[in-house]
Amino acid sequence: MKVAKTIKEAQSAVAEARRAGRTIGLVPTMGAMHQGHFSLIERARGECGFVAVSIFVNPTQFGPNEDLGAYPRPVEADLAGCEARGADLVFVPSVEEMYPRESVTTVAVKRLTDTLCGRTRPWHFPGACTVVAKLFNIVLPDKAYFGAKDFQQAVIVKRMAGDLDFPVEVVVCPTVREADGLAMSSRNAYLTPQERKQATALSGALRLAERMIRQKRPPAKQVIEAVRRHIAADAPDGAIDYVQIVDPYELRDVEKTDPPVLVALAVKFGKARLIDNALVDSGPARS
Amino acid sequence: MKVAKTIKEAQSAVAEARRAGRTIGLVPTMGAMHQGHFSLIERARGECGFVAVSIFVNPTQFGPNEDLGAYPRPVEADLAGCEARGADLVFVPSVEEMYPRESVTTVAVKRLTDTLCGRTRPWHFPGACTVVAKLFNIVLPDKAYFGAKDFQQAVIVKRMAGDLDFPVEVVVCPTVREADGLAMSSRNAYLTPQERKQATALSGALRLAERMIRQKRPPAKQVIEAVRRHIAADAPDGAIDYVQIVDPYELRDVEKTDPPVLVALAVKFGKARLIDNALVDSGPARS
Repeated sequence: MKVAKTIKEAQSAVAEARRAGRTIGLVPTMGAMHQGHFSLIERARGECGFVAVSIFVNPTQFGPNEDLGAYPRPVEADLAGCEARGADLVFVPSVEEMYPRESVTTVAVKRLTDTLCGRTRPWHFPGACTVVAKLFNIVLPDKAYFGAKDFQQAVIVKRMAGDLDFPVEVVVCPTVREADGLAMSSRNAYLTPQERKQATALSGALRLAERMIRQKRPPAKQVIEAVRRHIAADAPDGAIDYVQIVDPYELRDVEKTDPPVLVALAVKFGKARLIDNALVDSGPARS
Repeated sequence: MKVAKTIKEAQSAVAEARRAGRTIGLVPTMGAMHQGHFSLIERARGECGFVAVSIFVNPTQFGPNEDLGAYPRPVEADLAGCEARGADLVFVPSVEEMYPRESVTTVAVKRLTDTLCGRTRPWHFPGACTVVAKLFNIVLPDKAYFGAKDFQQAVIVKRMAGDLDFPVEVVVCPTVREADGLAMSSRNAYLTPQERKQATALSGALRLAERMIRQKRPPAKQVIEAVRRHIAADAPDGAIDYVQIVDPYELRDVEKTDPPVLVALAVKFGKARLIDNALVDSGPARS
């Protein structure tokens, strides 16, 4: 496994693989990897001849009072984890390498970024889209892998890639969960033991919402209220940022809950802001 | 010479050339080609193994009351001109091919787009940058060729490519002029015979500015006034949009005229809006 710290090193490793006729898979991450990340690498490993993983805590997608400084950066463990899953290249650039001078260019996605996480974190998606565009241009992947836990991000990146004709297929992989249902996230590390217990309320509330929708398709408002009550009861230390039910393509709020719909929520526990979602499609319920 | 109407056709022609180890040159145009465009194709021909020309009158870079409908589209003549200069591929997509559904993504460049032409045409550069990003992603050129007549566009595209790590070298080629000094432009076709005569005032005023700067480096304000007076005298039917002197990298207005500086102007004659510029560098005067 090659570790590249510069854009040039990464490009030359990828170029060599491309010349050898291998398809290129990219897994963009901010590091602090857990089984969610590893599942993306494993999926890429199964589908591509060359798997590149990027680890970059991108400052432009953090807000002024967010956890940029505190975000965990266990680089050695991440590299070992990538190697164990068969990555060919890990690209670990510095901030100076990615932003060597004032960047004046932003890739902006309208509308899809105004809802859900974009409401309280308006800086997030412009920053994320711009760095993903940069990574696409550096690695020129045939396929890029994103997790469904960040459903809105996946929808936005997919749309951006389509609108700008990036020659990449955006692959969205299922959320990986702890045994008790909590969606894996690097930010779970911020939780106190008590918050950690309460945090299962997020996936619990989503399962409740899914059951309600599958059984009776009640108005979205009613499902949202039930989700909020569930979280208030099971996670008294959690502060709900949003609970929304949207169509999974345009992310517009729906009134009726005819599948497919996405139930998405964000809850803060102290300094940890956790997100989770459930896509309720028209297929049979998954236990 | 291959003519591709779809993105897929263009991509497959380019992919074949790339597999054959040829460097890819792209000349993005809006068609209505003149010797300025042809000089870009000739330059690309000399430097690249495969020359792609795109012809696309991009609606998103025109304002609501601009000349999108009237913009000349002499496709047959353009194709013949491209073939005569040795282009390998001409990509002539329809609007539906480039924008098959509502595009929500924009590539925005800050600050550099707020001055010069961006002041009166704020929609122009976001539209142009976005379509250039699309063309870069479709063709994946090693080099892309732009004319110095659209100096601000060239600076912005160069910066965008750098900021987003597009693996392309942006090559800026000299403005091509008519015998009487008028910069070649597809929009010169809009001029009445009388306006056409007066339009030489643009290049005349720029030569005057260059002489003043080379001789005495007067304050920018003084040069701008002289340019305005020259245009008012020689082109009474022209309405000046702007005359500015800026540094040629960041496009910030300068007070002193120490080279290198860019003298740039836009003048309207009826429905034709003409632009021109002169880069006054620290080398010896060019006749």
